[in-house]
Amino acid sequence: MTTMAHEGQTLAPTTHEELESILASAHTAARSFGELLPSARASILDAIADALEADAAELVAAAEVETNLGSARLAGEIKRTAFQLRLFGNVLRDGDFLDVRIDHEDPDWPSGAARPDTRRTKIPVGPVLVFAASNFPFAFSVAGGDTASALAAGNPVVVKAHPGHPRLSERTAQLVISACRSAGAPEGVFALIHGTEAGSEALKDHRIKAAGFTGSIPGGRALMDIAMSRPEPIPFYGELGSNNPVFVTPAAAEARGDAIAKGYIASFTVGAGQFCVKPGMLFVPAGTGMLEKLRASSLPDGNKMLNERIRKGYVESLQKLSSLPNVEVLVQGHSPLSTTPSPTLLITRAKHVLAAPRELESECFGPTSVVVEYDDISELVPLAETFEGQLTATIQGEDDCPVQDLVRVLSEKAGRVLWNQWPIGVAVTYAQHHGGPYPASTAAATTSVGTAAIDRFLRPVAFQGFPQHLLPPELKEDNPLRVPQMLNGRR
Amino acid sequence: MTTMAHEGQTLAPTTHEELESILASAHTAARSFGELLPSARASILDAIADALEADAAELVAAAEVETNLGSARLAGEIKRTAFQLRLFGNVLRDGDFLDVRIDHEDPDWPSGAARPDTRRTKIPVGPVLVFAASNFPFAFSVAGGDTASALAAGNPVVVKAHPGHPRLSERTAQLVISACRSAGAPEGVFALIHGTEAGSEALKDHRIKAAGFTGSIPGGRALMDIAMSRPEPIPFYGELGSNNPVFVTPAAAEARGDAIAKGYIASFTVGAGQFCVKPGMLFVPAGTGMLEKLRASSLPDGNKMLNERIRKGYVESLQKLSSLPNVEVLVQGHSPLSTTPSPTLLITRAKHVLAAPRELESECFGPTSVVVEYDDISELVPLAETFEGQLTATIQGEDDCPVQDLVRVLSEKAGRVLWNQWPIGVAVTYAQHHGGPYPASTAAATTSVGTAAIDRFLRPVAFQGFPQHLLPPELKEDNPLRVPQMLNGRR
Repeated sequence: MTTMAHEGQTLAPTTHEELESILASAHTAARSFGELLPSARASILDAIADALEADAAELVAAAEVETNLGSARLAGEIKRTAFQLRLFGNVLRDGDFLDVRIDHEDPDWPSGAARPDTRRTKIPVGPVLVFAASNFPFAFSVAGGDTASALAAGNPVVVKAHPGHPRLSERTAQLVISACRSAGAPEGVFALIHGTEAGSEALKDHRIKAAGFTGSIPGGRALMDIAMSRPEPIPFYGELGSNNPVFVTPAAAEARGDAIAKGYIASFTVGAGQFCVKPGMLFVPAGTGMLEKLRASSLPDGNKMLNERIRKGYVESLQKLSSLPNVEVLVQGHSPLSTTPSPTLLITRAKHVLAAPRELESECFGPTSVVVEYDDISELVPLAETFEGQLTATIQGEDDCPVQDLVRVLSEKAGRVLWNQWPIGVAVTYAQHHGGPYPASTAAATTSVGTAAIDRFLRPVAFQGFPQHLLPPELKEDNPLRVPQMLNGRR
Repeated sequence: MTTMAHEGQTLAPTTHEELESILASAHTAARSFGELLPSARASILDAIADALEADAAELVAAAEVETNLGSARLAGEIKRTAFQLRLFGNVLRDGDFLDVRIDHEDPDWPSGAARPDTRRTKIPVGPVLVFAASNFPFAFSVAGGDTASALAAGNPVVVKAHPGHPRLSERTAQLVISACRSAGAPEGVFALIHGTEAGSEALKDHRIKAAGFTGSIPGGRALMDIAMSRPEPIPFYGELGSNNPVFVTPAAAEARGDAIAKGYIASFTVGAGQFCVKPGMLFVPAGTGMLEKLRASSLPDGNKMLNERIRKGYVESLQKLSSLPNVEVLVQGHSPLSTTPSPTLLITRAKHVLAAPRELESECFGPTSVVVEYDDISELVPLAETFEGQLTATIQGEDDCPVQDLVRVLSEKAGRVLWNQWPIGVAVTYAQHHGGPYPASTAAATTSVGTAAIDRFLRPVAFQGFPQHLLPPELKEDNPLRVPQMLNGRR
């Protein structure tokens, strides 16, 4: 395709003057946008979802040019992105997200002092800066999860475009801005910027009150350090790296070895392995035939990666992993380092992981995974203990496996623990948690996927002794918005 | 009193070897303590409360020696501290704090992909380091708010004693350890350390997973920077400084000028002004007689401050504030810089605050406050806009005052906004929020007082596809703990 010539070309970076104007507009928009009733913000989210779906064909075509992802996957991602916006709309209409708490005055409160009338709600934090990801050009980019949750919370959003898909980002931003405008949002509630410098300058600006990020550990840590060293530090919600180990118990290997091998191979190769929850390690028991099954598997053909920069990074990671002592190739296609890299399965043994876990367990973004052979199920807990914070950890087990200790250790290590499923495909739901201890996330108490993500961009405020007419509507005694209220400690 | 000779003497700092042993024990205790049922942890909190109350007389006597606070105040503070521990016990028995969310499997989930069975709960973060405060030797010290919420959340606690009351800290720690032991908590669940070096070393240690702090802006910021620059950064929950401005509208000054003057003077002088929510500024309208009423007021006598270090800091702050251009003394007793400093009211005008707010609005920890005269009610919003993040902001108004804009700006600036009340006395309740944008707090989304404080020391984790017998009890379908559960998005 001639249009492929666009790949890797970035747009002109946002200038200092342009950024100043964008930040001033976001600052101005914050108050009027934050004061919209939740239901009005829901309508704006719906309008953005409608706009994405209305132009889905054009967006898919634009994304294909810049990302090498297939049209089916891209169309599905638009559906997910639109769904996510509408789900936050439902969250807004429901009102549970405000966690409203009302304490009536109580002169006999047993703390030793009278309890004043106190009413707590949550308010938007102010303009949010979102660093878009490369690997989900819709769901974690311009109109993706962080944008949806920050807008839902009532904050203007400035997105720093990912350089991997600048034109798609521009096109998406135009749709978002136009949808916001036609749905009655104030001007300046959304803007797109380009360039590392502009992103860093925006992150340092006092008008930005929180930031969201999805990307690598070094990149995320550098930005987090900027956010934390500001005169006024701000929350930095970074989703960084994860190995996403999978632990196969002996009983599961015996019972379902073929299915596990098949599921694993599909899981680490789909989308050229470019998922933050791609399984990076599979622990398999010796003597159960698992290793032989994997060795005998034919891996799928390679696919183009998102862009050349990412492919180069992948090749470096693969070469580094392969060259570690005690690591060998288990299965590999004929062109592992080509522009369409054949998937690679590496192999090592449990004792080597126990001896030097950090490099073996580092994330390799692309179609490579490491198989680790262990001898006894008692090794799984110590192996699990070697991991840093993870987005996910998975057990392939059978119901009678003695895995309670393993479940416990993995829940201490990961934000999401799976049983007999595969981590790819982070469902957008109420109970989802996409985070985990550092370095999986810079803010383990929060999630970047699911309805609870709205919490990131809200801040509680308590009103004490206020007359009804001066209270926000959700705190009024007659509850005109019909939101859930905790009343004197009871919901 | 001969016992006053103890004041200012610190105990021997915790050695590196002692700290190592304490951290190792806390690390070991974390798992078994975190696995106790919430109701078992509640019993441990009750036992600590009982122990404090049983030895209240002795504790009050010990606190009087080291803090110069009166016995009535100290006895009340013990009551508050015990109440707080028991209230968290109730929170544990109720189970709402887990924010349990259960999504059943749904093949028709409209995101474009099937929804797996996903169940989210919250788990303890791991050992917590608490830096005790000087000004509440019980409620914000060894067995205070951060300790109560961290233990409630299921985490071992290491308290770094405040050097202002080391012996009381030791005595309190002995009570806590003994109560924990007799109530069945694992060894190592609580420990006390002394010394700046030991505190800093503990904060850097990989076994510490979160920290709480109450104190000054420079001290808190230095510790926050340590927490953030660790290889694995951890949440740092600091409650730092606040001016706590009070805005008197013309109508309120006309209607209740005497009462406001009286309430203000009581509020900034009680406890020698050593409260984090002491009102540091009072904005009064010209031409309403408010200034004259204040000038004619007799301020109460001075009291000893917590210790000599704090008195010296106060004298410096007062001298700095007094020497600012356009600041004059409005009322002052005869010995403002003595060992029992007479309270001081300073006076300036609104235009000076608007021109150079930062120094005028800085916290002066002690019995000083600044009266600011303004000409027109329209100045209040711009004046409010000059403030950094605050713990509290207060309006003294009348029901027909045009203050909607002022309420909105103050809610953007402060964690708690008050109407016709005074900020001193942070009630321990369900709806309380004691925090606010930086520098009031380093984590504006969280509170250090009230039941929501337990959130600081918990982390969500989602379980996907798990069989019932491997799930934590609160996530099981038959809900044996009878906790509130959000089921498929509905509570």
